[in-house]
Amino acid sequence: MSEKPWGGRFESPTNEFVEAFNASIDVDARMYAEDINGSKAHAKMLTAQGILSQEDCNAIMRGLDEILGEIESGEFEFTIALEDVHMNIEARLTEKIGDAGKRLHTARSRNDQVATDTRLYLRHRSSRIIGHLRHLQRVLVELAETHADTIMPGFTHLQTAQPVTFGHHLLAYVEMFNRDIGRFKDAADRMNQCPLGSAALAGTTFPIDRHMTAATLGFDAPTANSLDAVSDRDFIMELLAAASITAVHLSRFSEELILWMSAQFRFVDLPDAFCTGSSIMPQKKNPDMPELVRGKTGRIIGGLVAILTTVKSLPLAYNKDMQEDKTAIFDAFDNLEGSLRVFGDMLPGMKVNKSVMHEAAASGFATATDLADALVRAGVPFRNAHEIVGKSVAHCIKEGIELHEMDAATCVNIDERLSVDMVRTLSVENCVAARDHIGGTAPNQVRLQVAAWKEELKS
Amino acid sequence: MSEKPWGGRFESPTNEFVEAFNASIDVDARMYAEDINGSKAHAKMLTAQGILSQEDCNAIMRGLDEILGEIESGEFEFTIALEDVHMNIEARLTEKIGDAGKRLHTARSRNDQVATDTRLYLRHRSSRIIGHLRHLQRVLVELAETHADTIMPGFTHLQTAQPVTFGHHLLAYVEMFNRDIGRFKDAADRMNQCPLGSAALAGTTFPIDRHMTAATLGFDAPTANSLDAVSDRDFIMELLAAASITAVHLSRFSEELILWMSAQFRFVDLPDAFCTGSSIMPQKKNPDMPELVRGKTGRIIGGLVAILTTVKSLPLAYNKDMQEDKTAIFDAFDNLEGSLRVFGDMLPGMKVNKSVMHEAAASGFATATDLADALVRAGVPFRNAHEIVGKSVAHCIKEGIELHEMDAATCVNIDERLSVDMVRTLSVENCVAARDHIGGTAPNQVRLQVAAWKEELKS
Amino acid sequence: MSEKPWGGRFESPTNEFVEAFNASIDVDARMYAEDINGSKAHAKMLTAQGILSQEDCNAIMRGLDEILGEIESGEFEFTIALEDVHMNIEARLTEKIGDAGKRLHTARSRNDQVATDTRLYLRHRSSRIIGHLRHLQRVLVELAETHADTIMPGFTHLQTAQPVTFGHHLLAYVEMFNRDIGRFKDAADRMNQCPLGSAALAGTTFPIDRHMTAATLGFDAPTANSLDAVSDRDFIMELLAAASITAVHLSRFSEELILWMSAQFRFVDLPDAFCTGSSIMPQKKNPDMPELVRGKTGRIIGGLVAILTTVKSLPLAYNKDMQEDKTAIFDAFDNLEGSLRVFGDMLPGMKVNKSVMHEAAASGFATATDLADALVRAGVPFRNAHEIVGKSVAHCIKEGIELHEMDAATCVNIDERLSVDMVRTLSVENCVAARDHIGGTAPNQVRLQVAAWKEELKS
Amino acid sequence: MSEKPWGGRFESPTNEFVEAFNASIDVDARMYAEDINGSKAHAKMLTAQGILSQEDCNAIMRGLDEILGEIESGEFEFTIALEDVHMNIEARLTEKIGDAGKRLHTARSRNDQVATDTRLYLRHRSSRIIGHLRHLQRVLVELAETHADTIMPGFTHLQTAQPVTFGHHLLAYVEMFNRDIGRFKDAADRMNQCPLGSAALAGTTFPIDRHMTAATLGFDAPTANSLDAVSDRDFIMELLAAASITAVHLSRFSEELILWMSAQFRFVDLPDAFCTGSSIMPQKKNPDMPELVRGKTGRIIGGLVAILTTVKSLPLAYNKDMQEDKTAIFDAFDNLEGSLRVFGDMLPGMKVNKSVMHEAAASGFATATDLADALVRAGVPFRNAHEIVGKSVAHCIKEGIELHEMDAATCVNIDERLSVDMVRTLSVENCVAARDHIGGTAPNQVRLQVAAWKEELKS
Repeated sequence: MSEKPWGGRFESPTNEFVEAFNASIDVDARMYAEDINGSKAHAKMLTAQGILSQEDCNAIMRGLDEILGEIESGEFEFTIALEDVHMNIEARLTEKIGDAGKRLHTARSRNDQVATDTRLYLRHRSSRIIGHLRHLQRVLVELAETHADTIMPGFTHLQTAQPVTFGHHLLAYVEMFNRDIGRFKDAADRMNQCPLGSAALAGTTFPIDRHMTAATLGFDAPTANSLDAVSDRDFIMELLAAASITAVHLSRFSEELILWMSAQFRFVDLPDAFCTGSSIMPQKKNPDMPELVRGKTGRIIGGLVAILTTVKSLPLAYNKDMQEDKTAIFDAFDNLEGSLRVFGDMLPGMKVNKSVMHEAAASGFATATDLADALVRAGVPFRNAHEIVGKSVAHCIKEGIELHEMDAATCVNIDERLSVDMVRTLSVENCVAARDHIGGTAPNQVRLQVAAWKEELKS
Repeated sequence: MSEKPWGGRFESPTNEFVEAFNASIDVDARMYAEDINGSKAHAKMLTAQGILSQEDCNAIMRGLDEILGEIESGEFEFTIALEDVHMNIEARLTEKIGDAGKRLHTARSRNDQVATDTRLYLRHRSSRIIGHLRHLQRVLVELAETHADTIMPGFTHLQTAQPVTFGHHLLAYVEMFNRDIGRFKDAADRMNQCPLGSAALAGTTFPIDRHMTAATLGFDAPTANSLDAVSDRDFIMELLAAASITAVHLSRFSEELILWMSAQFRFVDLPDAFCTGSSIMPQKKNPDMPELVRGKTGRIIGGLVAILTTVKSLPLAYNKDMQEDKTAIFDAFDNLEGSLRVFGDMLPGMKVNKSVMHEAAASGFATATDLADALVRAGVPFRNAHEIVGKSVAHCIKEGIELHEMDAATCVNIDERLSVDMVRTLSVENCVAARDHIGGTAPNQVRLQVAAWKEELKS
Repeated sequence: MSEKPWGGRFESPTNEFVEAFNASIDVDARMYAEDINGSKAHAKMLTAQGILSQEDCNAIMRGLDEILGEIESGEFEFTIALEDVHMNIEARLTEKIGDAGKRLHTARSRNDQVATDTRLYLRHRSSRIIGHLRHLQRVLVELAETHADTIMPGFTHLQTAQPVTFGHHLLAYVEMFNRDIGRFKDAADRMNQCPLGSAALAGTTFPIDRHMTAATLGFDAPTANSLDAVSDRDFIMELLAAASITAVHLSRFSEELILWMSAQFRFVDLPDAFCTGSSIMPQKKNPDMPELVRGKTGRIIGGLVAILTTVKSLPLAYNKDMQEDKTAIFDAFDNLEGSLRVFGDMLPGMKVNKSVMHEAAASGFATATDLADALVRAGVPFRNAHEIVGKSVAHCIKEGIELHEMDAATCVNIDERLSVDMVRTLSVENCVAARDHIGGTAPNQVRLQVAAWKEELKS
Repeated sequence: MSEKPWGGRFESPTNEFVEAFNASIDVDARMYAEDINGSKAHAKMLTAQGILSQEDCNAIMRGLDEILGEIESGEFEFTIALEDVHMNIEARLTEKIGDAGKRLHTARSRNDQVATDTRLYLRHRSSRIIGHLRHLQRVLVELAETHADTIMPGFTHLQTAQPVTFGHHLLAYVEMFNRDIGRFKDAADRMNQCPLGSAALAGTTFPIDRHMTAATLGFDAPTANSLDAVSDRDFIMELLAAASITAVHLSRFSEELILWMSAQFRFVDLPDAFCTGSSIMPQKKNPDMPELVRGKTGRIIGGLVAILTTVKSLPLAYNKDMQEDKTAIFDAFDNLEGSLRVFGDMLPGMKVNKSVMHEAAASGFATATDLADALVRAGVPFRNAHEIVGKSVAHCIKEGIELHEMDAATCVNIDERLSVDMVRTLSVENCVAARDHIGGTAPNQVRLQVAAWKEELKS
């Protein structure tokens, strides 16, 4: 029974279907580079500590380099009989270099090995996701600059609320993506500790130098508790939470793009290259990309639920359940990265229908708040001002006019404190220009924010 | 731009990454047989209604049969440029038979086509899952018969509660799996209506016979509302809910097997063929299969969350988001089916340590309730009886004895209504035998239930 | 220590904060009627079986009736020291009638008691939810009749797809709610088995008649396995899954109402009584109710996740974790019932802007599919017809005209098979009228469906 | 219609059930102190900017202080007709001080007000949760010191793996809770920006000083984008993610306590004050607290799913759906805080059965890895050493002996490289002592870690 690396005490072979069901190689093979780098760092440390001979170490280095080449050229054949990426590579190494290969697993276990590989791999992927987020921020800042004074209706409850600048609206997403970057960075920092040396669960009897291994692999430090190090999947939960929140942001943006591209809104037009048509309706041009990105939100949140539910109630230390961790996060990261890439490529080609946006902002009593503010400036308490304007709006709806079209008599009739002068200055341009404080929608503020972001995004 | 089946109105080609990101062919290709059967049924109906010529119909049948052969022999090359299984097959058909192929899509859309394919495919898969559940029930009923009078401790709060029979415990899972079967059947019945003919969203202008198509494909009826038919993903949500509950049942069983196989419980031993060892600890024999099955619960629940979140708030009718539906359910069904298969294969080889179970049941005051019942039969109100036995247990813990070891003086000392005769008849055998009513744990009841299940499971 | 009903073997009192944290009385008190009915049925059965005297039984009946009165008049004081509704009522009963009260708990446990109460309570609540769904269906069928030939644009991808009738659109929701009713009914049927008599986990030593108790409480049968009966929370998971799917349906309807009420769509106007305003913007009239209902979807799905995660991996039989089951489902049912009620009350007062809907349907090339169908009827294969119309649409977009405005020369120029006659008959009225088959959007079909639903909804 | 603060343009009153369904006062009333502090800061800033008179400001301060007193003494009557905590307080203020009260809402909206209140409230609650986590760490570090050399079996797959020290095991949780603290701190930092001044969505026309308001309320800065500030619920998602991960940690610890307290493990005994008994089984002492805490994990994860699902796909800016945000996080925080408090109070009273733990560690071949390591030190490649020990274990199982009981002949017979000297030194004490490197389980390392944690936890 010793074909399996752990077969010594077993009497019967593994059931064939179980072998396939149990194997993780189709999921974890993509961590081959991290597995090889981890093994190299481990071998070097063993050698520095006198646990491995220099000769064995050299053979291991050479063998691992060859294997890396074989994998990247597509020659390497992964087999489910060897369960996972670790055993596939180790077995091939022993095939190549003999006993030295069998010595590599001294003072380590697959438990600390897989924890190390996964952290290295996710560190790399998180950094790529941060790169995509940064790129998307740059794209949005460019667009915001172009549209610093493009006026559109701002919505609450999807009802026209107050006019805003389109640039200001776009910068709201730059803020969201910035918090996303913060979450990915915090998570990446928190996980940047090296589990190698924790061995199966309790550490090892060999005189290892965990600081050396950690430093070689770019970790900030070795993990401080071996039981925790092999049981911990916090970093997967935390990264999936960060991914889920980012996906929620993308879903909100998607929803808006889909609305804006409808025949009813006509605020924007997405480029042909990011839309598809219909197999039956020849006129259709569908905003497939925002829809697909919105749809993938469910999948990413589902991945977060999967890992939380899987780890819930597991006693220490490693349990096989934890093998399911990678499916969820790899799928989420692939889909999130694809979504970010699509948005970064798609948005620069978006056509913005300024006139339609402006017209929408100018109707629907979007200036009502400013009329109330004018009354307040004339000494009317805000709550009373609110009521006076409420009556004015009700009047205008009945008459089919806009607020600035009310005449002097009408104003006085509604409330003597309401003057036609207040009404005449109402315009969407004045509305947005007046909100000229930090965080406000004024074109002036948008330009200040754009400048600040450009500085921030230089690096 | 007319390479795409919908390219007529488009000016620029699809972005290359978008093409890959948008394509569903890697997920939906597995529904090829259902797609072909659906197309055949559609073509036959069109022909019967005079919309398609018999000649075209014949060509379509022949072409589709050839394509089926090509796919099953592995010759067929699916391409992402053609987006999905439907277009891949249709394009190949037109390549083979020319204009007749282009006529196949008359009076249908991919929207009703994919809804039909998915229902057909999931009907098939649900029926396979039901088969696995049935098989697992049979395995458990066999085991229950063998262990109708094997006594083990019954637990609540993982504390020894009362002795039960192992057969009774196993039959609890037969009940759970029976409800699971009921849920899969109800869901399968509810979805067994044919969407074909709903076309894109509103039906078609051609004089189609939807009853004929429905009947040909084994559906109970055509769907009653075209907008609903193309927007509805209830069947995926409902099947994923059924799968999640089944997975929760398997996770509970897994938890028990893992506990029972620990050095502390030693109630059972799972066959070598369903366990694996450790890369570092030579003595280990790990219950990988129940652990993995328990771990997959998270993934299946995650799939349910994914589809619920994806469909939430989608306006009618089809939206691209819905393309994400299949990933969740295909993954869940694959994992659930694998889990059921593993359990069905693994359990017959499980070794049961009767003596360990018996010893565990006989200690820990598992007979305390029966002593209280004896007091009740002697006229003591239950609440008082409960208190008297509570004191007896406290006494025994202090003395390090079991209840049946108390002597007459001790009994009277605790409460004059407590007699040594009541105490002497306490035994786990008497405990289980006394619970001889419907649903009770008595060996007699287990045998009655086993007989009833055997009858039920014959078909 | 015997103040607690289980205090016999304990040496120290319960920690004060633990007492509050552990208590479920604030959640389960609402099941008081079910608890009392369950106790009555249990007492009658015990009496019929000679386990309880007729005198004790009479006292119990009288005492429980008095307690019911006290609770409903608000006099009863629930206390957390008595943990739950069961112990609060039993303690009060004993206070009232002495020893007879202490005899009531003979042959039962809180484990089977709470399982019974919960099933009774949820049976009642499910039936109320079904009532609200039925009412909502009736409201929608009425509206559908009124709008059998009101034409609106049908959307896919939120792009104008084909004209549909508003009545047809509304009936799509009648279909969804019908499946919802089916799911609630199936779940209610599946859970309609009586756990009483399962006692703590293994049944009881008393000669009980479980059929009698089950019949008295309106259950179809007693549960078949005591371990399963006290461990089973399937009915909560299944009902929460049904509630989640219903909530998803309501969220889709909500999304549409919110869209339709925007200044951009203006398809409908919801009654003032179901909207609120803004504390700052005097002109606002917000569709709060659909928004709130859409928002509550997350909460209901969250409840489903809560119960699935809680039960996952619990060994048999009862574990304290299961106390958390009721919070999730009570909250979900309260919110779902409120949502259904609001929709049933709100929709009859909705104003429908037919002319706006019609205008939207008549633009945006919604008739393109029908032009393709006309070409097919003239012998052009569908795929070619699709392409010809695609080119026509591209031409019209460039020229700023609609399809039916193309002249003969233009038609021929695009494709010689395209005739101006085909183009001239294009109208949204013809489009909807032509889809006159089962499930199609034709006014004729809507009226047939309305008639069928009226018949169905009579009872 | 002007009873409602927004009633100006409305013609019919709010539907009565809608009023109750819509109101959030039962949920948000608990933020009264934050609402009052926010209003005070706002009024001071308005006054400093000359928008409000000093007289009005004084009246507002006095009025708000009185209201705070009324609320804290229980005199204040919240009413659902006034919807939420903001309007209830403002209405009472106006009742008390007249027009000055009506001026308070100048330059703000409920949208920025609720965002501010919620951040303030959650900042406070997060800090309390961090306090409980710190306390729990201190409790665990104390326990770890006491049990620095208490030996127990370390498990992987719930199978005996290698001996570990109980102190080391407890410190694993100190690591987890430390990452939890880090996540709560990061989230609290990220959200510590003041939304006030964002008004409804676009900022205000009044010359406000947002830096002043932010500083008064202890925020690091004002938020940078008004649309983002009123739409953003990231902080709720992020805090719920942090809470979920903490809950998962507590569930793992709970699972272990429940296992350890079973009759099969008998590793620990929890204090009576944290356990309860059974209403039917007089002998029971149930670990209710860890069970309940484990059960609450589902509820907290459910809350995370609720908020993610609710915010998914919401267009900017405020939508009513977002009112549902508080239910999820308030419930989660209440339950998490209670769980942490219970653990902090319960663990110091836990009895540890050292001898049972030691015995369990000494059986089950927990020293097998060390035998393999000994072979490696004698020059045998690790893979071969692993196989030799595997055979030794298989032999011992057959013979019913432990590894250190093998005699010289047996050793040689298994493999000539295996010496009886290697076997004789095997002991659990040697095993743990040998793992004396950073992160290892050696008593020495545990003491070093304890010292480091004590230093860290001083502040």
